[in-house]
Amino acid sequence: MTPNQYTPEEPISSIATALAPAALGIVRVSGKGCIDLVSKVFSRPKALLEAPGNTLVYGWILDKEGESLPLARTSLLATPSSGEPTPRNAPGRIDEVMLAVYRAPKSFTGEDMVEIFCHGGPAVVMAIQNLMLKSGFRQANRGEYTFRAFINGKTDLTRAEAVKEIIDSHTDVSRSHAAGRLAGSLFSEIDSIKKLIVDTLAAIEVEIEYPEDEETIADSFDRSDIELAASRLQALEDSWRGEKLYQDGARVVLAGRTNAGKSSLFNAILKEERAIVSDIEGTTRDWLESWASINGIPVRLFDTAGLRQTSDVIEAQGVEISRSLVHDADVVLYLVDGTQGLNDEDRSFIENCKEPLIVVYTKADKGIPEETGRCGVSPLEGVAEDAVVEPVETTAAGARGSLSPSVCKISSKTGEGLSDLFAKIYGLLTADLGSGGAGSTTERTQAGLGSARQKEAVSAALESVKHALVSADDNYTLDAVVQDLEDALDALGEVTGDVTPDDVLGSIFANFCVGK
Amino acid sequence: MTPNQYTPEEPISSIATALAPAALGIVRVSGKGCIDLVSKVFSRPKALLEAPGNTLVYGWILDKEGESLPLARTSLLATPSSGEPTPRNAPGRIDEVMLAVYRAPKSFTGEDMVEIFCHGGPAVVMAIQNLMLKSGFRQANRGEYTFRAFINGKTDLTRAEAVKEIIDSHTDVSRSHAAGRLAGSLFSEIDSIKKLIVDTLAAIEVEIEYPEDEETIADSFDRSDIELAASRLQALEDSWRGEKLYQDGARVVLAGRTNAGKSSLFNAILKEERAIVSDIEGTTRDWLESWASINGIPVRLFDTAGLRQTSDVIEAQGVEISRSLVHDADVVLYLVDGTQGLNDEDRSFIENCKEPLIVVYTKADKGIPEETGRCGVSPLEGVAEDAVVEPVETTAAGARGSLSPSVCKISSKTGEGLSDLFAKIYGLLTADLGSGGAGSTTERTQAGLGSARQKEAVSAALESVKHALVSADDNYTLDAVVQDLEDALDALGEVTGDVTPDDVLGSIFANFCVGK
Repeated sequence: MTPNQYTPEEPISSIATALAPAALGIVRVSGKGCIDLVSKVFSRPKALLEAPGNTLVYGWILDKEGESLPLARTSLLATPSSGEPTPRNAPGRIDEVMLAVYRAPKSFTGEDMVEIFCHGGPAVVMAIQNLMLKSGFRQANRGEYTFRAFINGKTDLTRAEAVKEIIDSHTDVSRSHAAGRLAGSLFSEIDSIKKLIVDTLAAIEVEIEYPEDEETIADSFDRSDIELAASRLQALEDSWRGEKLYQDGARVVLAGRTNAGKSSLFNAILKEERAIVSDIEGTTRDWLESWASINGIPVRLFDTAGLRQTSDVIEAQGVEISRSLVHDADVVLYLVDGTQGLNDEDRSFIENCKEPLIVVYTKADKGIPEETGRCGVSPLEGVAEDAVVEPVETTAAGARGSLSPSVCKISSKTGEGLSDLFAKIYGLLTADLGSGGAGSTTERTQAGLGSARQKEAVSAALESVKHALVSADDNYTLDAVVQDLEDALDALGEVTGDVTPDDVLGSIFANFCVGK
Repeated sequence: MTPNQYTPEEPISSIATALAPAALGIVRVSGKGCIDLVSKVFSRPKALLEAPGNTLVYGWILDKEGESLPLARTSLLATPSSGEPTPRNAPGRIDEVMLAVYRAPKSFTGEDMVEIFCHGGPAVVMAIQNLMLKSGFRQANRGEYTFRAFINGKTDLTRAEAVKEIIDSHTDVSRSHAAGRLAGSLFSEIDSIKKLIVDTLAAIEVEIEYPEDEETIADSFDRSDIELAASRLQALEDSWRGEKLYQDGARVVLAGRTNAGKSSLFNAILKEERAIVSDIEGTTRDWLESWASINGIPVRLFDTAGLRQTSDVIEAQGVEISRSLVHDADVVLYLVDGTQGLNDEDRSFIENCKEPLIVVYTKADKGIPEETGRCGVSPLEGVAEDAVVEPVETTAAGARGSLSPSVCKISSKTGEGLSDLFAKIYGLLTADLGSGGAGSTTERTQAGLGSARQKEAVSAALESVKHALVSADDNYTLDAVVQDLEDALDALGEVTGDVTPDDVLGSIFANFCVGK
């Protein structure tokens, strides 16, 4: 869909809550005349039509087609809180609802809006939405409400994108970063960088208009603001890899021999650090898969357990699947039964694994026998002993560079060593993020980027700003510098939506939920 | 949980929408001081505290713990519709929300309430609920909001139970029956029956107080009202089997040889008549399973296809599973490739099947060869030919009684014969419902029962009323008749909740959603 397919003001409707049994559900409508349209299928049309903005109206949604209205009134019924009798015996009665009434421009979209708060059964929510479609509303496209909010000046693009982020966030950290952008942290930072550039441009323009003498560029051009802009753009650009990690998550795969304790660890992690998702995927396939939150990073956790318990053909498939899961992993946890120690199969896997690896000795509660260290292949032995006592920072990120994997001792039963394991996984995942993304991101106050689109535009702006600095160094004309700075402003305008091509807008909103 | 564990007025909170990514989510709070408690984590406490009932207030939910409030204000940000600046750079910012404010007694529960309309990401909805729990709210128990509505006189039990029904309904017909009860159709009918009994009792009491002469009971007792009450109670009791079918649904199993067209029919039914549910179950198991709506009846459709494509051990398990699925079926569809006709395996299945059965000849679009009829076992042959042209009513319910299954000719590809098949399934499922539940239930205007609990109470009332009539016939004393009628009134009081023991209340609300 492109924005051309959006038709502002046309009445649109969609279901805004998840379609599963729940206490409440919401159907949301927006556009010119939408309050009037809803009143035609509402038990108290006058109350609705006269309702001021930002108020709630009680009543019933009715499918009046082919019915004998007006509704029967009966004194037998307890009256609802509105004091009006409840309609009964009306065949087309859909549900008892509260309507939230918004009047333009004081609404999310900036248009007249009604939110229908109904009971949360899929059947009833769908019945209301279907009635709306019969009553003059068009099904809303993905992101169409937010798009209207954008074109009506109720939000900029960074905050519009933050809405999608906040809905899709898997952990509290992801959610909190998105909330920052929704509140305008990125918008403000971009705006403030633009101001640095605009001020510099203004100074240069004066110089061009009223040249007092034949000064060099070096004299007329104040570098400091542009250098500051460059460093702040750099910080924003650096933030993206970290933000992306918090949005998309990472893949962590549990490998190891049968009975190494993979399933126990899988369950122990889920129990402690279950990420915020509504479903466990993968149970339909030949492996187990779920989201977990590892120190705030959403991690898709794979367990290949159980593959060896079926016939040969299936086992062969299973081994193939395991290999490909390991190959795509961001971190591999190779589990070794700590009461048994390494055998040749383990050593072979560990030596040949190309992916970031942590060797996890399990069943620590049963006591790891003295000889475990000795039966390990020699390069592992020392690391294994050290890892348990060394601080996390030293072992996590660095070890794999020298091809010695991190080593952990855990007990899925008692939870011993789990937080150490999490710190190591976190260390590996954030090792190459640099200052922009690693470290204690929960305490981060600085603005970060929320989408690949924003990152591209910021990178373009940064390049232009850097080019302006080089041009000034090389004593190009002021016009060349002006062009660079204007290019940078254009790129930043794309981030917030001041200057954004239609096709970009289309792809942004097409990724939204319906109803948003 | 029993009602004793309910603590009216204590501030409670819960998530009221399904926990899956969606545009909007709702956290709902109720109880004494709840508006004040929410204001402590809201960006515009004054606006909230001063808000009249039934209004909406815009703002941010904030986790103020350990933060440097008041919030920074900045002119850089576009102001939201409320005209107030958006808080930014506040670390504990959770989400931008609308609050629906209700003031006692004008609310669903009859208490002060706030509904927090937030973005619909599981992480944000959970973050808000967790903040509420930190802020003085207790997690609401299942059905606790509706229970409070009940004890505060905002609803009776028939309507309270209808709320649960409406949320759980799988088809539009189920939903519409529940909506009728929610609107008070059952309450009114019970109330009206009670009135017949009460009037009769009043007349008898006069008779007992002021006996003019030694009249017999036959003279002093006006049977007509009580007979009317009995017949209306009987109609209610009869309604339950049908209502239960619409609530719980029925099991329909597709059986037949490999390539008989089971998967095609399964998919064709789902495409045309997908019931209103949010998930397809069963894909994790060795058979396919989904909900479909067959003429408004929610049907759990099972397809055992694919079982024969694996190794022997697994096939053996599959055959076992198929057998048990067929055994538990309400209707079995036995599919026969119409281009091939019956073979011995088919005949054996059809002859031995004890469950209600429809033989479905598939691939009608390919043309069923002339000899298909002839290769059928003889008892089937005539039926097969007739069934396609005969009206549904004659073949559907009756046939199986004489052990001749219904026969259908369909094409999953073109859809030919599907509506005939649905009519036959519907006929078999409703055959033994009698006048109370069968027939065109969508046009039914009469009240029906919504739960097994209601049915038990209505049956008890009916028994007492019948006993009263017998007592009168046998010329018992008026006191005996009075006792019967009072027993009937007590039983009816249980239906609506006038007279309901605590443990019954507990079990009713314990089956609700949290948040309702």
